[in-house]
Amino acid sequence: MRSAWSTEILLSVDRAALATLRGQLEHQLRAAIDGGRLQAGVVLPSSRELAAQLGLSRGVVVEAYEQLAAEGYLVSRRGSGTRVGRRPPAVRQSAGDHRLHAPAYAFDFKPGLPDLTLFPRRAWAACLQHAAARAAAPQLDYPDARGDETARRVLAHYLARARAAQAEASNLVLCSGYTQGLDLAARVFAERGVRRVAVEEPCFSGLWQSLQRLGLQTIHLAVDEDGLAVQQLERGAAQAVVVAPAHQFPTGAVLAPQRRTALVEWARRSGGWIVEDDYDAEFRYDREPMPALQGLAPDRVLYIGTASKILAPALRLGWMLTPPALTAAVAAMKQRVDRGAPAIEQRALARFVEGGALDRHLRAARPVYRRRHDTLLAALARSCIGGGVRGVAAGLHVMVELPRTTDEATVVHEAARRGVRVFGASAFWRDSTAAAPALVLGFGAIAESRIADGIARLADAVEQARGAGRRPLGVEQRRRETV
Amino acid sequence: MRSAWSTEILLSVDRAALATLRGQLEHQLRAAIDGGRLQAGVVLPSSRELAAQLGLSRGVVVEAYEQLAAEGYLVSRRGSGTRVGRRPPAVRQSAGDHRLHAPAYAFDFKPGLPDLTLFPRRAWAACLQHAAARAAAPQLDYPDARGDETARRVLAHYLARARAAQAEASNLVLCSGYTQGLDLAARVFAERGVRRVAVEEPCFSGLWQSLQRLGLQTIHLAVDEDGLAVQQLERGAAQAVVVAPAHQFPTGAVLAPQRRTALVEWARRSGGWIVEDDYDAEFRYDREPMPALQGLAPDRVLYIGTASKILAPALRLGWMLTPPALTAAVAAMKQRVDRGAPAIEQRALARFVEGGALDRHLRAARPVYRRRHDTLLAALARSCIGGGVRGVAAGLHVMVELPRTTDEATVVHEAARRGVRVFGASAFWRDSTAAAPALVLGFGAIAESRIADGIARLADAVEQARGAGRRPLGVEQRRRETV
Repeated sequence: MRSAWSTEILLSVDRAALATLRGQLEHQLRAAIDGGRLQAGVVLPSSRELAAQLGLSRGVVVEAYEQLAAEGYLVSRRGSGTRVGRRPPAVRQSAGDHRLHAPAYAFDFKPGLPDLTLFPRRAWAACLQHAAARAAAPQLDYPDARGDETARRVLAHYLARARAAQAEASNLVLCSGYTQGLDLAARVFAERGVRRVAVEEPCFSGLWQSLQRLGLQTIHLAVDEDGLAVQQLERGAAQAVVVAPAHQFPTGAVLAPQRRTALVEWARRSGGWIVEDDYDAEFRYDREPMPALQGLAPDRVLYIGTASKILAPALRLGWMLTPPALTAAVAAMKQRVDRGAPAIEQRALARFVEGGALDRHLRAARPVYRRRHDTLLAALARSCIGGGVRGVAAGLHVMVELPRTTDEATVVHEAARRGVRVFGASAFWRDSTAAAPALVLGFGAIAESRIADGIARLADAVEQARGAGRRPLGVEQRRRETV
Repeated sequence: MRSAWSTEILLSVDRAALATLRGQLEHQLRAAIDGGRLQAGVVLPSSRELAAQLGLSRGVVVEAYEQLAAEGYLVSRRGSGTRVGRRPPAVRQSAGDHRLHAPAYAFDFKPGLPDLTLFPRRAWAACLQHAAARAAAPQLDYPDARGDETARRVLAHYLARARAAQAEASNLVLCSGYTQGLDLAARVFAERGVRRVAVEEPCFSGLWQSLQRLGLQTIHLAVDEDGLAVQQLERGAAQAVVVAPAHQFPTGAVLAPQRRTALVEWARRSGGWIVEDDYDAEFRYDREPMPALQGLAPDRVLYIGTASKILAPALRLGWMLTPPALTAAVAAMKQRVDRGAPAIEQRALARFVEGGALDRHLRAARPVYRRRHDTLLAALARSCIGGGVRGVAAGLHVMVELPRTTDEATVVHEAARRGVRVFGASAFWRDSTAAAPALVLGFGAIAESRIADGIARLADAVEQARGAGRRPLGVEQRRRETV
């Protein structure tokens, strides 16, 4: 068997086969074109080259090319060689290739996203370009599992000054975002004998499922206006707790100072671990953000931050500040699961932060979000939606309570009929039947000028849903403003 | 308590505290500078700004700045504001911040690495820059867990033409390299009831430990000149097998055609899964590379490829072709562990491949590695090392058997003393005592001109080790050339 791998195409002919050599060659080329391996316009080797590579007489290749040209598979032109023709190949449709195309909404209140049109493309592109073009050979090797040294130093400095974290480059592990950070932490916990992890109720959907799939038992603790009900930790026998002290999702609560202290005391007393989800702490509109909890207890808190909300989720960049006792284990886990984060992007991030581009971006983005937040709250106050707005002026979403008699799913459905995308909050409860009807409204993906109209339509949807509700109208309308 | 978060620094003063406001401010600034949160050269807000933000009289801030300037913490200059001074902060040294600095070797035969100086920096940087600058807002959102659609289409086309894979964009899942691909596959297997996974003996160290840590039982099958001893699968009750058919590490064996067929038949008959590690298949020097096994049985083979050997490990880019029956589960696992690979890098890769830069790079790199390979083999043949060279002319390493009486560790040690870094092969066996003494020599990281001298020194080290060996000299010197 002789073969050629010309222009990276695998072709071979087998002299022992029954088919003629020309027939084999034709068959293989047809199959390659039909199968999409050779696409229209690709230049084939000259008949002389291919014949030499395959150990065939040139005439065999010429004849095969001529036959395929006659069939439309190939196009030969004097001076420009032989190319694959435009004849559509037999299309291989795959049932698996369906994408969920979300219907377009006139008013999109999807939570959990920053405004992606604000992403500083040029500055980021320049940092990437710079990092790649200057990457020295050792930086192209397998990275330190914790991440590039320069990137860790710069990020540690950023977290210290912006989040008052006790950040040191040595304890920083770069990862691909909050999700991976949590996966790494949970796997390290599981290996160290942690069996029970407390989570907030409600919280990001997927959080407790991920923990449970790793064999961990989850304990669901309430969240009120002061954040996680830390006192419940004492009863639960949890060995670790996942908490978002700066701005809880979806309630928008901030962990109260006395609870921060109590949480740290619990961790110190019980030897428990705290996972701090600091996902959108950079956006606080009414006052200074709370410092990171990690700064109070760097020995007990595993801090996870992400670029998803301050820049863009597609970057898949995150960072963990690990308690010194866990650093080696987290780094080893990172090494085991993917051998470390991409180095060029880390150096780009370092340049982006060190050069002030991140500060500039945040300074530009904050007032935009703040105006959207204020516009949204004003629109909600004017509307007859009736429930209260929970949480502080921060982040990229608010939670709106609906009148108790309203069916949440009906509101979401009626809103969608009016071109408004909203999310029911019950999806974020483990026990959704226990959840009071509420909506989570994101303002990262909607222009300020669209908000009032969107809320007016939403109010209409709520009204419609209340009319359709099974329970009688007119019951007490709780107003629990914690803004 | 009033605070300011100017230039992302957390500062606050508490009117209820016993310390004077000025004292508090000074203390916090000192701590921020000592702790590294504020570094030399950082510009502070003007006294007027900071006073307004903190709700203090300007005089308090002026006095605090003056005191800190006197102490060297700050430098004030008319017209350029107040900056953090060059006074070295109290350094917080961390015991955890030790990096293993490998000693520099005059001759480095480290395996598993391409020549990083060949990395096409400029072309890659241009692709990254282009992808980032043109990223539309939807591309900056959380990505499809399988990866960017364009990147999958381009890569599927590449794998079809270059590796004769039955690649479709819908079944492709982008990941961060072979390590993550294997972790995802193993976790999916474990969830689907797979308990026993066969691996090659010897193989990449870490492979079976990773599987075992996920609760899977590993079955270790021999590798000979024809690759994995597929016939042993029949006895072992394995439900999946991890194999490197194109170029096995460390033996360099290629899976023989009849074994490829037998392996696929085993999978079809038993319902077993095959994980194909195609890690350096693009580098074959003596003949055409074997097509990917996946092309024979896309329904049973989970194919994993990586940019680590053809470009650079630091990119952390890999790809999996998943059997259609597993695609959804693998994508869901990728979603769960890290919500998908970074999108800008994927689009950069797509541009790099589609624009022909990858083909150009491979065409340039192949002859470089081929010459190093041939030079290495010639030097080994001239040397008196005595053992045979195993494996085919491919990839980035060869395995060299040592005379049976030689102690492998002594050779590695004696070589290091002579400035030559080589790796003993026994580390790649589960049962290293069963391994015949051998070395794995990489030629990715050593210049062609250094190879002959390095091997001469290595021969000297082997000679020394044989003299130091416990067993008598002069025994039969096997020569099992399978090149």
